[in-house]
Amino acid sequence: MKLDMSLVDPIIVNTLREDMPNGDITTSATIPAGTQISGRFLAKQSGRVCGLEVAARVFALVDESLVFTPLVAEGQDVEKGTLIARVEGNADSILKGERTALNLLQRMSGIATATAQAVAMVQGTRARIADTRKTTPGLRVIEKYAVTVGGGLNHRFNLSDGILIKDNHIAAAGGITPAVEAARRATHLLKIEVETETPEQVDEALQAGADVIMLDNMSLEMMADMVQRIQGRAVTEASGNMGEKDLAAVAATGVDVISIGALTHTVQCMDISLKF
Amino acid sequence: MKLDMSLVDPIIVNTLREDMPNGDITTSATIPAGTQISGRFLAKQSGRVCGLEVAARVFALVDESLVFTPLVAEGQDVEKGTLIARVEGNADSILKGERTALNLLQRMSGIATATAQAVAMVQGTRARIADTRKTTPGLRVIEKYAVTVGGGLNHRFNLSDGILIKDNHIAAAGGITPAVEAARRATHLLKIEVETETPEQVDEALQAGADVIMLDNMSLEMMADMVQRIQGRAVTEASGNMGEKDLAAVAATGVDVISIGALTHTVQCMDISLKF
Amino acid sequence: MKLDMSLVDPIIVNTLREDMPNGDITTSATIPAGTQISGRFLAKQSGRVCGLEVAARVFALVDESLVFTPLVAEGQDVEKGTLIARVEGNADSILKGERTALNLLQRMSGIATATAQAVAMVQGTRARIADTRKTTPGLRVIEKYAVTVGGGLNHRFNLSDGILIKDNHIAAAGGITPAVEAARRATHLLKIEVETETPEQVDEALQAGADVIMLDNMSLEMMADMVQRIQGRAVTEASGNMGEKDLAAVAATGVDVISIGALTHTVQCMDISLKF
Amino acid sequence: MKLDMSLVDPIIVNTLREDMPNGDITTSATIPAGTQISGRFLAKQSGRVCGLEVAARVFALVDESLVFTPLVAEGQDVEKGTLIARVEGNADSILKGERTALNLLQRMSGIATATAQAVAMVQGTRARIADTRKTTPGLRVIEKYAVTVGGGLNHRFNLSDGILIKDNHIAAAGGITPAVEAARRATHLLKIEVETETPEQVDEALQAGADVIMLDNMSLEMMADMVQRIQGRAVTEASGNMGEKDLAAVAATGVDVISIGALTHTVQCMDISLKF
Amino acid sequence: MKLDMSLVDPIIVNTLREDMPNGDITTSATIPAGTQISGRFLAKQSGRVCGLEVAARVFALVDESLVFTPLVAEGQDVEKGTLIARVEGNADSILKGERTALNLLQRMSGIATATAQAVAMVQGTRARIADTRKTTPGLRVIEKYAVTVGGGLNHRFNLSDGILIKDNHIAAAGGITPAVEAARRATHLLKIEVETETPEQVDEALQAGADVIMLDNMSLEMMADMVQRIQGRAVTEASGNMGEKDLAAVAATGVDVISIGALTHTVQCMDISLKF
Amino acid sequence: MKLDMSLVDPIIVNTLREDMPNGDITTSATIPAGTQISGRFLAKQSGRVCGLEVAARVFALVDESLVFTPLVAEGQDVEKGTLIARVEGNADSILKGERTALNLLQRMSGIATATAQAVAMVQGTRARIADTRKTTPGLRVIEKYAVTVGGGLNHRFNLSDGILIKDNHIAAAGGITPAVEAARRATHLLKIEVETETPEQVDEALQAGADVIMLDNMSLEMMADMVQRIQGRAVTEASGNMGEKDLAAVAATGVDVISIGALTHTVQCMDISLKF
Repeated sequence: MKLDMSLVDPIIVNTLREDMPNGDITTSATIPAGTQISGRFLAKQSGRVCGLEVAARVFALVDESLVFTPLVAEGQDVEKGTLIARVEGNADSILKGERTALNLLQRMSGIATATAQAVAMVQGTRARIADTRKTTPGLRVIEKYAVTVGGGLNHRFNLSDGILIKDNHIAAAGGITPAVEAARRATHLLKIEVETETPEQVDEALQAGADVIMLDNMSLEMMADMVQRIQGRAVTEASGNMGEKDLAAVAATGVDVISIGALTHTVQCMDISLKF
Repeated sequence: MKLDMSLVDPIIVNTLREDMPNGDITTSATIPAGTQISGRFLAKQSGRVCGLEVAARVFALVDESLVFTPLVAEGQDVEKGTLIARVEGNADSILKGERTALNLLQRMSGIATATAQAVAMVQGTRARIADTRKTTPGLRVIEKYAVTVGGGLNHRFNLSDGILIKDNHIAAAGGITPAVEAARRATHLLKIEVETETPEQVDEALQAGADVIMLDNMSLEMMADMVQRIQGRAVTEASGNMGEKDLAAVAATGVDVISIGALTHTVQCMDISLKF
Repeated sequence: MKLDMSLVDPIIVNTLREDMPNGDITTSATIPAGTQISGRFLAKQSGRVCGLEVAARVFALVDESLVFTPLVAEGQDVEKGTLIARVEGNADSILKGERTALNLLQRMSGIATATAQAVAMVQGTRARIADTRKTTPGLRVIEKYAVTVGGGLNHRFNLSDGILIKDNHIAAAGGITPAVEAARRATHLLKIEVETETPEQVDEALQAGADVIMLDNMSLEMMADMVQRIQGRAVTEASGNMGEKDLAAVAATGVDVISIGALTHTVQCMDISLKF
Repeated sequence: MKLDMSLVDPIIVNTLREDMPNGDITTSATIPAGTQISGRFLAKQSGRVCGLEVAARVFALVDESLVFTPLVAEGQDVEKGTLIARVEGNADSILKGERTALNLLQRMSGIATATAQAVAMVQGTRARIADTRKTTPGLRVIEKYAVTVGGGLNHRFNLSDGILIKDNHIAAAGGITPAVEAARRATHLLKIEVETETPEQVDEALQAGADVIMLDNMSLEMMADMVQRIQGRAVTEASGNMGEKDLAAVAATGVDVISIGALTHTVQCMDISLKF
Repeated sequence: MKLDMSLVDPIIVNTLREDMPNGDITTSATIPAGTQISGRFLAKQSGRVCGLEVAARVFALVDESLVFTPLVAEGQDVEKGTLIARVEGNADSILKGERTALNLLQRMSGIATATAQAVAMVQGTRARIADTRKTTPGLRVIEKYAVTVGGGLNHRFNLSDGILIKDNHIAAAGGITPAVEAARRATHLLKIEVETETPEQVDEALQAGADVIMLDNMSLEMMADMVQRIQGRAVTEASGNMGEKDLAAVAATGVDVISIGALTHTVQCMDISLKF
Repeated sequence: MKLDMSLVDPIIVNTLREDMPNGDITTSATIPAGTQISGRFLAKQSGRVCGLEVAARVFALVDESLVFTPLVAEGQDVEKGTLIARVEGNADSILKGERTALNLLQRMSGIATATAQAVAMVQGTRARIADTRKTTPGLRVIEKYAVTVGGGLNHRFNLSDGILIKDNHIAAAGGITPAVEAARRATHLLKIEVETETPEQVDEALQAGADVIMLDNMSLEMMADMVQRIQGRAVTEASGNMGEKDLAAVAATGVDVISIGALTHTVQCMDISLKF
């Protein structure tokens, strides 16, 4: 996934405004006009760096004369103590952008790091790690991007660009079969995913022609059975508190996709500091 | 702190739009117009509930005919299994608001819960638990509110409404004393806080007339010493990875305020589900 | 498709502002405060009515005391001379909303009517009529909705919610096969459509596992051949100036979908007037 | 009329967002970073080119490194097969802007072409071709501009910048005379136009001192009579389904202005393609 | 002029946000939830009240449960000590809206009062008092409205809805005559006003067919001469620091309109307080 | 205070849009494309220049090819007749920006001038001149900046960044003491100001530990008494129609701050013209 900066700019502008409705009074009072400084972003723990272009854009939006220089590549795994980037220019501008740049860079790197760890756990299997819609309000575009930087797969972005038939839809439509048929009439371009919790539901979804079958909250044993039963006739997706599961064991069931809400809903920010 | 809903509405509208740029196609295809459902928000772990008014507003903005009924009070501590609220009305509307309401409620309750735990750890001391500016981009207003629901104190909201003199300001102004004097000329309404890391800096800040002295990254021993040295002539604030510290021990040093970035930068969402 | 009014409101507000930056001076000067009128929307030609909820919303946004009463159902086919709706209330408010309501209602009804005509031409065949991305800038959501009211199928809404591999993508990826494979790695939820112009391309797309094959600018004969060759292994979509073709003949080739840009890029507004 | 790009930018930004809420997934998946392409805009029918600056701006807003080079002048009449412009640069950026640029260029050129045709029909008479407020919602500024590129005259832009007294105003004010007097009290800068359908109304409007008299839905014969009767004491404007009339015959009645809603409400987009 | 509240709402929302980016901390800390108060708007000087609907809207936007009751009519002249309006409800909501409501009400009443005074000075003459474009940035719509409440006439709202040919236009066009002709080709609906400073310019403007002639910075004597010379063939408008002139004397020259920038560029707010 | 241009841009864009919803028709009709002019901003009265950067930005936002050259420094005191700045480039662009640039520059210079005059009146005393929240709706950020250019001190920016306990808060909280205590619990960073009108209130505020005491509407004599009584234990602020008072006499009472609403609520624009 390439990150579309026109979608990121409003996030940055909004965050800067939130942090500085009427300027930075401490800096304004204490730092003489024209003071120049240079700051270095330092990894205080190991992880996968993500969001360099976003951090660069924060400083550009504060003051286009600032010079931001990445010292590692986007998506690079770094050790504790690595210098990640440098920013130089007017002291007041750098201090205005500091918190916003750090908050974004730490969060994005934290997500990429957690995703990369999950991907590593399932290496050698057919399983791919995917995100969910449990993203931080307002930050979905950068969080889903961070998942791809971590090597993950994006599940649907929103309710408009993917079909996922859950129990409410099944109940209201009168069963899995009529629900799948109704969905198929609505689109010739989207695959149809059905959430299942029992073997009977899996069977019905398969017969109804579901393209993707979510195996939700199943035991590892049942999950493996379902993968056998489906035999590649539909994509299989493991779901349900996957953030707390042994991902290698889940992958060993043979599922195609493991979707993990915790990748984005419980973010451990990567510890990065800006030193002057 | 009372939560100003006019500041929350743009967050909700933006999040709904993010999740539904062109409607909910699954629901649109499968759920007959006029289908009514009733959902219950269920605590799947114990914690402090926060964000009921926000969740209510999410559903009101999706469809003002929906009826959202809180079943506990804002800020109430609940056990796992407690029903928190109920929402009733058009199925398609409830499903459109579901993810946004949950993402906000879980996050706010997670912050309130973590804050309440921190407050409990320092109970019986003079120390108060405070937040920082390390909030999630775009969500500061609701996160700072959640901290107060957890019993915490809000540090400054942004760079415009508080003075905090850090090392860069000190260096550029030519020392703590000139920095404090410059800040004092800029305002007669804001207290002046100075970040210190050594006893010498504490002394200079005190003499310069700082109102609040941040004791940053000090050992417990030095912190206790500094509190003694200051003798109430300035408010004392402990800072520096406080999220990983033994808060009772920090409080035992006698500091007035303990500010913890982790309260908002590393949020463990409270597990709440919406059951139909 | 259900029309999400939260997406329509900005269109209406923008249009009202465009038509009335500083109020309606003629009405302000000539119509005494409190004057009441009643207007009737009259079909001046036969067609399929679409946009009643939008027209109602225009008047509600101008003045919530206005009463708008639809007299036919959304999607109903009406004869010339049919009364479609009535609006009653303050004269100045109705006159302010008149042009905006008419412009939207006429356009939406025009699209629904043209779509319904196309759908009628292919009745009894397997072919479904679909729209494209050739919509009027800023109005995609209401135009795609109008297509569904006309009985049509929505093609992808935008570049983010559907995969359509065209010649540029094929050239850059190094062929149809690598392009399809790259797309498949990017999503497990979206079907993959490939645009083809020759039998060789159709063969390669089929072998690469394309889910949907667009038959672009082909003769009817070649199109029929391709449908035979594909034998249901992919959805087939006829494309290329379909607005000027004999749709019954196109449908007779056996294609599944006929996508027509003219449905939205060359709109013949339905003639509807507002009489007082 | 010069086109104010600050009014056009929001239209372009909105349209790009509409077409690309989360990026272009096909292009993102299949086109390697750094791929360069060159595209040529080709007239697939003859017509008057309009909107080159707008198309250029679309690409600039997507990616400022793109190079857009017009090959004909704004307002130039071209034959089928003429190359209109060239765009060069990053393949992914050009493909993102393609649809939006084409949709705008085709529409604007279509309006300019239709206007130029109407202007040609009345050449040699005193009549000028004018537009109306029946424009596409949200696009008025570019559509009115396209009319001027076609050689037409702009009628009022909106309800705030022109006086047009219609039957409702006349009824509410108690007749043409009091309505004109009320309008005259409201402004010393705007001419006063009165809509008339009968000779009696024309007489009353003249006596009341109307500056412009709209001859609405009159036969050619009556229109010619009215022009005679008015004898230049007011500007005359022919109106009422003028898009379906013999414009030469209308002009032959001696009217000053012929206003045609169809110029903008029923646009035949000019067929222009982007070839790579 | 009727005030279009949809144009006023953004002004109010923006002003409230400006005054309350994160709530009212004093009120939040000190006033118990549910405290009710009642406030009365009191005229502390005599003047013409203007902006009651705007003040009402401020409170409605803060908290729709507040009850705002006007005690005088919009446009009424009041003596010092008159109660103008009452507002009742939640104390915290009233205190949040207080400053914004007062700032707007005082400004609008100040403008209406100054305008009414100017109108009174020219009573009995043909002269009407008009405003200019020298309004407060962002507040034009409410300031022009306040002028009409004061009995004044609105000059053009902006550069798009009126023709005013000044020296730069004359120089660039090659004289008054070609400038007027060029303007006349551009519109059949707007009158053409020409700014003149000498008798020669007045003559040329007249001959060119100007509809309105601005007599700019002329002595009273010359102004009277020019009115004689024009003899009603064009509307005459006196201009040039009129805020500092003896308006009765200006009116005595026989001009039709006196336009005064000071009505809006140097506003003396009417002293109104909110007492609890 | 440094002026944050990201806060100013929306004000400028809004004002330009207000003045030019559909372009400048006079200029468009009369001035040939490519005409170049040069204009000079001329002080028509003496005063302190403020807003040069804002005026420059107006022209940059209209047309980035314009060249704006300040000829005096921001905050410089100039005599009548001084050239303040020059702007050169496309005539149509300069004319579009003229009114907006002048309206802002005149207002900001007017405020700076009035503030500088007030500051001069209290020179040699300890008193500083401060503004209030009685600013022009929507323009607070530039007005507060202009006050600092005039040598004044900014009072709180808004309800969110300062504590000011007034009579309503006192009444609702049950007295000055509980109100101050409640406020102190809410913040460790903001000083607490209490509005007082009597010696008893001053005493209570002092004892409650107020940091700043507003002496509201007191006679000079009482004010001097209160300053004596407070003896530096709190900052003292004189308030109440200070715009009409003898500031030297107020300062002679020994107060620390004199806050004057009239600095911004009754602005006398500095007379500056743009000559070509």
